Amino acid sequence: MEAENSSSRSVLVLHNGVIVTMDPQRRVFRNGAIVIDRDRITALGFINTHVHTSQQLARGIADDVDLITWLHDRIWPYESNMTEEDSYVSTLLCGIELIHSGVTCFAEAGGQHVSGMVRAVEQLGLRACLTESIMDSGEGLPASWDIRATDDCIQVDLTILDNVTEKDVFTSRFQSQKQLYKKHHNTADGRIRIWLGIRQIMNSTDRLLTETRDAAKELKTGIHMHVAEIPYENHFVMNTREAEHGTVTYLEKIQFLQNNLLAAHSVWVNDTEIGFLSKAGVKVSHCPAAAMRMLGFAPIKEMLSANICVSLGTDGAPSNNRMSIVDEMYLASLINKGREVYLKGTTDPTALPAETILKMATINGAKSVLWDDEIGSLEIGKKADVIVVNPFSWPMVPVHDSISSLVYCMRSENIDSVMCNGRWIMKDRKILSLDEGEVISMAKHASSQLLKKAGIQIPSRMNFI
Amino acid sequence: MEAENSSSRSVLVLHNGVIVTMDPQRRVFRNGAIVIDRDRITALGFINTHVHTSQQLARGIADDVDLITWLHDRIWPYESNMTEEDSYVSTLLCGIELIHSGVTCFAEAGGQHVSGMVRAVEQLGLRACLTESIMDSGEGLPASWDIRATDDCIQVDLTILDNVTEKDVFTSRFQSQKQLYKKHHNTADGRIRIWLGIRQIMNSTDRLLTETRDAAKELKTGIHMHVAEIPYENHFVMNTREAEHGTVTYLEKIQFLQNNLLAAHSVWVNDTEIGFLSKAGVKVSHCPAAAMRMLGFAPIKEMLSANICVSLGTDGAPSNNRMSIVDEMYLASLINKGREVYLKGTTDPTALPAETILKMATINGAKSVLWDDEIGSLEIGKKADVIVVNPFSWPMVPVHDSISSLVYCMRSENIDSVMCNGRWIMKDRKILSLDEGEVISMAKHASSQLLKKAGIQIPSRMNFI
Repeated sequence: MEAENSSSRSVLVLHNGVIVTMDPQRRVFRNGAIVIDRDRITALGFINTHVHTSQQLARGIADDVDLITWLHDRIWPYESNMTEEDSYVSTLLCGIELIHSGVTCFAEAGGQHVSGMVRAVEQLGLRACLTESIMDSGEGLPASWDIRATDDCIQVDLTILDNVTEKDVFTSRFQSQKQLYKKHHNTADGRIRIWLGIRQIMNSTDRLLTETRDAAKELKTGIHMHVAEIPYENHFVMNTREAEHGTVTYLEKIQFLQNNLLAAHSVWVNDTEIGFLSKAGVKVSHCPAAAMRMLGFAPIKEMLSANICVSLGTDGAPSNNRMSIVDEMYLASLINKGREVYLKGTTDPTALPAETILKMATINGAKSVLWDDEIGSLEIGKKADVIVVNPFSWPMVPVHDSISSLVYCMRSENIDSVMCNGRWIMKDRKILSLDEGEVISMAKHASSQLLKKAGIQIPSRMNFI
Repeated sequence: MEAENSSSRSVLVLHNGVIVTMDPQRRVFRNGAIVIDRDRITALGFINTHVHTSQQLARGIADDVDLITWLHDRIWPYESNMTEEDSYVSTLLCGIELIHSGVTCFAEAGGQHVSGMVRAVEQLGLRACLTESIMDSGEGLPASWDIRATDDCIQVDLTILDNVTEKDVFTSRFQSQKQLYKKHHNTADGRIRIWLGIRQIMNSTDRLLTETRDAAKELKTGIHMHVAEIPYENHFVMNTREAEHGTVTYLEKIQFLQNNLLAAHSVWVNDTEIGFLSKAGVKVSHCPAAAMRMLGFAPIKEMLSANICVSLGTDGAPSNNRMSIVDEMYLASLINKGREVYLKGTTDPTALPAETILKMATINGAKSVLWDDEIGSLEIGKKADVIVVNPFSWPMVPVHDSISSLVYCMRSENIDSVMCNGRWIMKDRKILSLDEGEVISMAKHASSQLLKKAGIQIPSRMNFI
């Protein structure tokens, strides 16, 4: 279907619309038209730069619990029991939510069974940077995880791929990240890229960090890593490695900070560390919902002032519940206005205005996933990743300020259609590439089986009868 | 239509559903059924305890601007130029958003032309406590407002009503609150109640405060007032009136704190003042979005611990943009978990769990509007204010924890049907009592005319062509 579509020579014209380009001049055409010839002209699709597709089936398994319970009793047992098929179903379900919220491209935060994600992304029609969850050390991990050797994570010898069967390749345990890269990078009409992952510093040896850095340079790809999430992480780094402050200071010391690093969250960083991130060109994914629930207030205003490229992410369903970049735009504005109370004594309603938030969700997203040569703004020659918004219904009317309306009022209900890579993947709120009802049935079944297998019990609230 | 409906003797049975009662035992029936005989059995409709219906046409006129610009250049010119018809259209548009977000009852925060609101609420089929915006002093007000005398706000002599024509009564300037009460209280099959308003302490003389308190007692109704919104308000009270801390301390001193007071926001209150509010039985409406954007972090956890009845509100469209209690539940959880960073150094993911939030949006809402004898929980003999939620679509699947799913995952898209006072006002996402498209057209026209008349200019963002 994809091939058929991308080989057709039809020309599509969208007219009589407000066209938000996010080009370098930030042009907005009041009554514009765009011409889409195959997949070569692009408007405004949102980019979600931190999403755990593997965790979609875990929505609601860890709400209102402390961080240790969250990790040890819920998320680790869940992820370590996933099959490749679970990953596929989870990514399909997550992808449906991403498309409904106007996302055309996402960066996987590091999950289970990349091959399952690849199958789902091919089918969904989305653009994605896929990343495996990589850990080679750390305490308290489930048995199936903590035995993975550093070599096994990256695996330099690519020739081995020729000697294994297709079935072997679909067994994630067998695959190194370089093998995943060789097999899947730049597939699905160029929509899929493979990145390298580091789950977080407390689960990484120094060798894993430096070899990942070098492998990413060799493959010309990015690294996705959770950075400075909680105060404990910084204390842990200070106690176990020689670093004056925390994770970012240590990563700077070992030359891990590079312009191909996408650092998720980056909540607990001081001014010196903001300087390190800026100087190295590191990209930061800000996930407001997860930050408020689990982590803290990231110094987003300060990072933007230091010219750091900050984009937006939803994180995973057990950290947020709503996987919508539309809600995340609204939250990013509110939370960063409110954070000023603690810096100045009052909120600052002018902090992070709508145009800044829109930039974070589009062109900064494209830069964060190292893809801004092809996506993130509407410019001649870029890929056609377009969304069509209907502002004339109750969530948005009246529209007195179209940019702020897109950021603060718009709901997923206003997003009518989504095009990725020149192909419509949602039209009139109907996803074209798959049957939503079928995926929902598969997801209900798979998630319930997975929770049983993982032995996860969720205590009942209130008085169920 | 209403009369026809409420006089019919049909019996409705909803079965095979999870029924969340919010009754004193917090019972949840896994596979329950409810029988609705006319309007006498009630399930779970949400209650929005602070909403400016008059401001719906002002959505987007004051985004990302400082508080003085917000008030002096945008909101005051807007509100002071409204006609009774504008108030009617604005309330219709707002009501559509309230119904789509599962609200069956709301408390107007104090707005323009109560007679316009009454007309709209009658038509929408909602339940409401309507309140006029009342000010008898203060600097910088538009000319048409600052001349209102204290007597004119409350007007004790009810006999005057017999001497005026219908046209006079619809001229808000002529009507005192007691006249509004006499004319509209307990109308629309008992769905409409009239409350007394105090916009805020900086626009009120002492005489207005004490006479409002006494009039509310005489009429057995509630008072809706903005309380302790910003640090400046407390400083102002300390400087102009004899009070040790701020608004709440002063209101306690003049015996204004009573159990019929609904105090909106209440952000800048100290421990002693929390004690005053608790002892007097004052109700608090927490509006998380507006708080983050304009006000600050209210000590909600502390108020709940002090047994204060805290409910949820959206505030008005220019303070929030999204007028959805569904989003406000999600925000209330996130923001109050995040606020703990500044108290303890880390967020507390266990703060304000889902069941607490659900209580705030239902039974606490009913207590806040002094209506818990008839609404706020599903109990035999209560009014039938019911919503029907479909959890089997992408925003909510999988449902591992139905209570947290209602609070953290549910979107307005999941709310299929809404019943108020035994009558369906939305079925299958279609509002039954009016034509949504027609209201949207009216609202676009009215808001654009009103902005012109008020001389409000909204600067363009980015590079419009």
